Amino acid sequence: MANVAKKVSWSGRDRDDDEDGRAGETTPLLNGTGPGAAGSGRQLTPSPFLRIGQLSNVDLNEDIRELETEVPRQRPNEIPHNEKLLSLKYESLDYDNSENQLFLEEERRINHAAFRTVEIKRWVICAMIGILTGLVACFIDIVVENLAGLKYRVVKDNIDKFTAKGGLSFSLLLWATLNASVVMVGSLIVAFIEPVAAGSGIPQIKCYLNGVKIPHVVRLKTLVIKVCGVILSVVGGLAVGKEGPMIHSGSVIAAGISQGRSTSLKRDFKIFEYFRRDTEKRDFVSAGAAAGVSAAFGAPVGGVLFSLEEGASFWNQFLTWRIFFASMISTFTLNSVLSVYHGNAWDLSSPGLINFGRFDSEKMGYTIQEIPIFIFMGVVGGILGALFNALNYWLTMFRIRYIHRPCLQVVEAMLVAAVTATVGFVMIYCSRDCQPIQGSSVAYPLQLFCADGEYNSMATAFFNTPEKSVVNLFHDPPGSYNPMTLGMFTLMYFFLACWTYGLTVSAGVFIPSLLIGAAWGRLFGISLSYLTKGSIWADPGKYALMGAAAQLGGIVRMTLSLTVIMMEATGNVTYGFPIMLVLMTAKIVGDYFVEGLYDMHIQLQSVPFLHWEAPVTSHSLTAREVMSTPVTCLRRIERVGTVVDILSDTSSNHNGFPVVESNPDTTQVAGLRGLILRSQLIVLLKHKVFVERANLSLVQRRLKLKDFRDAYPRFPPIQSIHVSQDERECMIDLSEFMNPSPYTVPQEASLPRVFKLFRALGLRHLVVVDNRNEVSPCSLCPGARATLCPGSVCPHGLYPVPFLQVVGMVTRKDLARYRLGKEGLEELSLAQT
Amino acid sequence: MANVAKKVSWSGRDRDDDEDGRAGETTPLLNGTGPGAAGSGRQLTPSPFLRIGQLSNVDLNEDIRELETEVPRQRPNEIPHNEKLLSLKYESLDYDNSENQLFLEEERRINHAAFRTVEIKRWVICAMIGILTGLVACFIDIVVENLAGLKYRVVKDNIDKFTAKGGLSFSLLLWATLNASVVMVGSLIVAFIEPVAAGSGIPQIKCYLNGVKIPHVVRLKTLVIKVCGVILSVVGGLAVGKEGPMIHSGSVIAAGISQGRSTSLKRDFKIFEYFRRDTEKRDFVSAGAAAGVSAAFGAPVGGVLFSLEEGASFWNQFLTWRIFFASMISTFTLNSVLSVYHGNAWDLSSPGLINFGRFDSEKMGYTIQEIPIFIFMGVVGGILGALFNALNYWLTMFRIRYIHRPCLQVVEAMLVAAVTATVGFVMIYCSRDCQPIQGSSVAYPLQLFCADGEYNSMATAFFNTPEKSVVNLFHDPPGSYNPMTLGMFTLMYFFLACWTYGLTVSAGVFIPSLLIGAAWGRLFGISLSYLTKGSIWADPGKYALMGAAAQLGGIVRMTLSLTVIMMEATGNVTYGFPIMLVLMTAKIVGDYFVEGLYDMHIQLQSVPFLHWEAPVTSHSLTAREVMSTPVTCLRRIERVGTVVDILSDTSSNHNGFPVVESNPDTTQVAGLRGLILRSQLIVLLKHKVFVERANLSLVQRRLKLKDFRDAYPRFPPIQSIHVSQDERECMIDLSEFMNPSPYTVPQEASLPRVFKLFRALGLRHLVVVDNRNEVSPCSLCPGARATLCPGSVCPHGLYPVPFLQVVGMVTRKDLARYRLGKEGLEELSLAQT
Repeated sequence: MANVAKKVSWSGRDRDDDEDGRAGETTPLLNGTGPGAAGSGRQLTPSPFLRIGQLSNVDLNEDIRELETEVPRQRPNEIPHNEKLLSLKYESLDYDNSENQLFLEEERRINHAAFRTVEIKRWVICAMIGILTGLVACFIDIVVENLAGLKYRVVKDNIDKFTAKGGLSFSLLLWATLNASVVMVGSLIVAFIEPVAAGSGIPQIKCYLNGVKIPHVVRLKTLVIKVCGVILSVVGGLAVGKEGPMIHSGSVIAAGISQGRSTSLKRDFKIFEYFRRDTEKRDFVSAGAAAGVSAAFGAPVGGVLFSLEEGASFWNQFLTWRIFFASMISTFTLNSVLSVYHGNAWDLSSPGLINFGRFDSEKMGYTIQEIPIFIFMGVVGGILGALFNALNYWLTMFRIRYIHRPCLQVVEAMLVAAVTATVGFVMIYCSRDCQPIQGSSVAYPLQLFCADGEYNSMATAFFNTPEKSVVNLFHDPPGSYNPMTLGMFTLMYFFLACWTYGLTVSAGVFIPSLLIGAAWGRLFGISLSYLTKGSIWADPGKYALMGAAAQLGGIVRMTLSLTVIMMEATGNVTYGFPIMLVLMTAKIVGDYFVEGLYDMHIQLQSVPFLHWEAPVTSHSLTAREVMSTPVTCLRRIERVGTVVDILSDTSSNHNGFPVVESNPDTTQVAGLRGLILRSQLIVLLKHKVFVERANLSLVQRRLKLKDFRDAYPRFPPIQSIHVSQDERECMIDLSEFMNPSPYTVPQEASLPRVFKLFRALGLRHLVVVDNRNEVSPCSLCPGARATLCPGSVCPHGLYPVPFLQVVGMVTRKDLARYRLGKEGLEELSLAQT
Repeated sequence: MANVAKKVSWSGRDRDDDEDGRAGETTPLLNGTGPGAAGSGRQLTPSPFLRIGQLSNVDLNEDIRELETEVPRQRPNEIPHNEKLLSLKYESLDYDNSENQLFLEEERRINHAAFRTVEIKRWVICAMIGILTGLVACFIDIVVENLAGLKYRVVKDNIDKFTAKGGLSFSLLLWATLNASVVMVGSLIVAFIEPVAAGSGIPQIKCYLNGVKIPHVVRLKTLVIKVCGVILSVVGGLAVGKEGPMIHSGSVIAAGISQGRSTSLKRDFKIFEYFRRDTEKRDFVSAGAAAGVSAAFGAPVGGVLFSLEEGASFWNQFLTWRIFFASMISTFTLNSVLSVYHGNAWDLSSPGLINFGRFDSEKMGYTIQEIPIFIFMGVVGGILGALFNALNYWLTMFRIRYIHRPCLQVVEAMLVAAVTATVGFVMIYCSRDCQPIQGSSVAYPLQLFCADGEYNSMATAFFNTPEKSVVNLFHDPPGSYNPMTLGMFTLMYFFLACWTYGLTVSAGVFIPSLLIGAAWGRLFGISLSYLTKGSIWADPGKYALMGAAAQLGGIVRMTLSLTVIMMEATGNVTYGFPIMLVLMTAKIVGDYFVEGLYDMHIQLQSVPFLHWEAPVTSHSLTAREVMSTPVTCLRRIERVGTVVDILSDTSSNHNGFPVVESNPDTTQVAGLRGLILRSQLIVLLKHKVFVERANLSLVQRRLKLKDFRDAYPRFPPIQSIHVSQDERECMIDLSEFMNPSPYTVPQEASLPRVFKLFRALGLRHLVVVDNRNEVSPCSLCPGARATLCPGSVCPHGLYPVPFLQVVGMVTRKDLARYRLGKEGLEELSLAQT
């Protein structure tokens, strides 16, 4: 069953080479629940290791009751899925540098000039990110344009041929088969090679920027599959766009370049080694995402805002400016290359993959009276968007339950492709909306049953790449479309797009949303012009734009960044105010019903996503209630065997361990000395950094930061490290490697306070300490362990207890599990799925 | 001398009603240095209070040596000013809520629905901020337009009269007198009523958003003086703009509305009481600043980015969206009102106080070949900007030393006004550049010695409000200006603007910078067109725009926000890329020589401004070296007399006190229990919240959060609170009012780590604790104080020492004093000035 679960989740495949060297995540919990079963992640079983914290009976009982009720729910062919779950399988990124001695020594060695070099390198990387992202976008655009052109020409010729002599069903068959086979290839590579490349990638990148490590999301393989997949989906005629995936592509490019090596290709260029840690990598990924938005929509400022809205918890002027630089370079590269490709080398007229075309502000300004109308359109967009999301929600639940085998997923994708072609064909066939071909900008005018010199107007919408259809809806002169055509098109495309989103293909939802919105917006404009007997408001293109904004806002619920993206895509700031109004209304109305599409999918994957603030009503919770306890701690000088056992303990899989100075016989009190990560311990064990117990005075082997960087980010699993029985008895001194000043909170701190600290600093582990506990600070010092009792200044026979006592640990999942539901604060259950 | 110092600094006046109830800041330090003298702020004298921390001899010696060398430098008529000083007189804002019991009880009482009401109130406030800011901008614009129109008509009639019959010196006299008298009034009100209203207010708002409390900066009186002052400066013909001050005005409006009361007018509307704390107020001030930018330049997105760049350390999506809403409302209000005022009610054509006019992207696109030229212009802008700043730096130093009396300041302002008029007149008089009046857009064409039907081209630049001159330079057709005219104008205006910035008048530097840049940019464009023999690049308007961007960027060094402001002001995204390149180049080149104008002025005022990151090479410093020590601590149950004495202690003026549980006889160890602020103690004393020592079991009077809010932000000084001798012997229980979970750092944490925590969370006090100190945790428990020794579980006669030991305190000044200078890390001295 766990294997089945793999295929539907973003991170399902290849758990064995999980980036943090953690294996055995699928191993059953010691308390007997199988993998994939829901249950509390708190550790319940007694263990031989130093575990610190309260273990109240109440907790135990509750947890056990919970487990008992969860287990019987499982049925063989259905994956138990509950939206009130939080998955334990996602790791967190660490935005907090581990300031251990090695790190500080390096930083202190670096002088001012060297820091300037580092800064210059950052700029160079950003420029490279921009250039490469732009080039990838160009590649996608050019290939799609040629392949789609080829396909439409073939089908058009066929239709033209069969229109004359009858037998259009052959044309339908040809069209459907072409689409289905292209989509099949696109779906196959995604389903079998890299499932994380499915969809637009925006939810995944949102998670990454939020600090959740989605396995494989920034790998080279993912990029290749994504690019091929998106080309095939668009060429396959699905109701999808190629814009969303650019964000993902940009991020992968950024992650790759900034590390100066490719783990997949096993090439290390030995450059940019300084940037091999989560902090730096995440900054570059932000830049990559921004460059992607910028290339997709020609919206560099929008790209920066997207990255900031989604990611950077800590706004930093330099970082922002670098991100903006990458964005600008990206759109500029795309613009230059496409201009050359289109033969007008110097005019720079294609800033993005989609351009909304030039809205002439003089002809198409708006007046104050129109503002209520725009707000009304926002309401409509919000409702339609919520409907879209609700439908997609049910569909996704269905898919999670029943369509989890890759082959089924491929079949579904082919089905959708064939149905899309069929619907398009039938609509075109049934449409009697003919328009004069003269002066129109249609790329592949289908004459069908129209008179000579005319073309079928429905075909401009269906028989075209969606980007072109959007631009046509914005700019075709009034009268180009008949209201009936637009109405039918909206209806059909709405359901098609809804069905398509979530298929196992690489594709985005931006363009279909814009297209739906533009269609009903234009329809709305035409009706309005009809109602007001053709007053000055009549330009339907303007209403198409507002409808597109409303629909997109109603579906994705982005705010400032989307406003700016729309503004930049129109190339005109005049519409800023109405677009903002429309988006704001759509968001408010939509949020009333159901959340945004991306957030919905993130939640369906049970990702521990941290929102901006703790739930407003959570002041009643304190760190004590939120934290995980007991905590597995390590002593400052620890036995190697203990370390190995703790790391191999599949029941816990903790990634950070407080280092304490404690009386080994009194596990209830321990003074915090630092924090060490699983990955650091792995590297220490791998390099055999330890000394024999008898020779504690010997200096243990020194490591360099480079050793840690070389292992980043795919640290080997503990199982791959052989430790002999003799070595197990050695001692390892962690002082030099642990972070001696981890952030801490007292256990009385409220949840919002803990949340704020955690979120603002991008932490992964937050140690909860007790500074109020009145237990005895003097305990018996056993003579045998005298070496571990430094400076006994207590009365004879007593051992001084350190001052900061570890009582628990807060990690991402402990904070993400509290959510504001309809009935107030609700707590998600933790599950291994 | 201290009185003299008052006048030149932003916060100089009315120290007696400083917002935090702190008096006696001008009282001499106990160690004998006079006020105004530089010296270390660390407390050196022994004191009767509970002071905790190390006091090393090394520190003492160093500090004393420093003091000895500083003292003799003072001379009677010169204010000793050293740019390597950090003033101790600025308070910090507190972005961290004091989560005491009262606060938590209130938050827990508020349910979900009530939180929604709070959220709606926030939106209403933002809308009001936008509307009022827009209206104030309209008011300024309309009044300036009418008064300036009147002035120019009078002068023009006079010139026209005297051109015919000779005696133009009378016209010059009239012009100069008119200007000087108008400026005199503007300068008088600023110098004598509210000096903080001087200048653009941008540095002050930057400081406020950064977390520094500049006294009076967000008061109603300041707003009134600012608005009147800026009108008078612009009408007085100074080389200033009215845009910068809008940012300050918007901030004051926001601060006023969000508090639901005016302390100056003594009116409390009893609304928005929830928002009466620094955290909320600062968010609204961000919105106000953004609304100001938006109204000034018609740049709502630019406004949001400005606020974010300068202020919000923690990016929050909801906050950003609200700020954007306020910005949009602001530009929309301005647009509507001005459209109605100009008679074309519905066309919404004036989004900002300055609009760069419509750049037609078709006619004025750019090609790739032009990009190196733009970069070159950026270099020129950077150099000219650095020159401007360097000149202004010397001028400001001169002003701080010699022109510190208000009357001298008024005289200087009048002098500048008269000189500006004279220079303008002489330039116009000497110019022989005549242009045909037909088809030009000049508002007040001066014929002077030109032929009939022609006008003096120099007069369009000088005989006009600067906003109009800028737009003329952008859009006048090629050939409207003769290169000689532009060159002379640039030269003269450069020095005039440089002299003007820093005068005691309300005025901004944006427009003069743009004007200088537009002039040399246009000159550059003309030369280029001449050199290339009139190729397609010839449009000088485009080069004027780039020159304007380069010059402004070279002076103020803003990054993303300025790019977006320029983009929005041109109403066109086409120029985004070149503008970014130009601004980036200008910033890099400028930063090489000298820092930005605003930062320079902030530094000249010795404000403890926190930059984005700690200096890169500061990893060698730890919290131990950075912190202030010893710390004055309070016991959880403290004698009232001690509290009063500590608050009245003019040698320390601390604002936050760690609350400890300690053995009163052993001041070297104390366990942290919480943190309490001076303002909270003041309110407690005012409401007599204490019980007699004999009746410690009695419940002391309960306070509500409202009592604290009513006193916010102008807490009374301790001197105004009478505490009788009997009351001094009472005890005060702080448990309920202190923040029980203040943020702490261990003393080994590196400076960058401390900085990051402090900056990201917007803290005011950060307690440094020792979790490694190996002193004895068991000390003698004196029988007399048995009540203060709870749960003695130590061996008989010993008292358990608490676990978290306070060793120091880090506040803003401790972090701001480390700076990256030319020769590496440098440390600023602290001074009372």
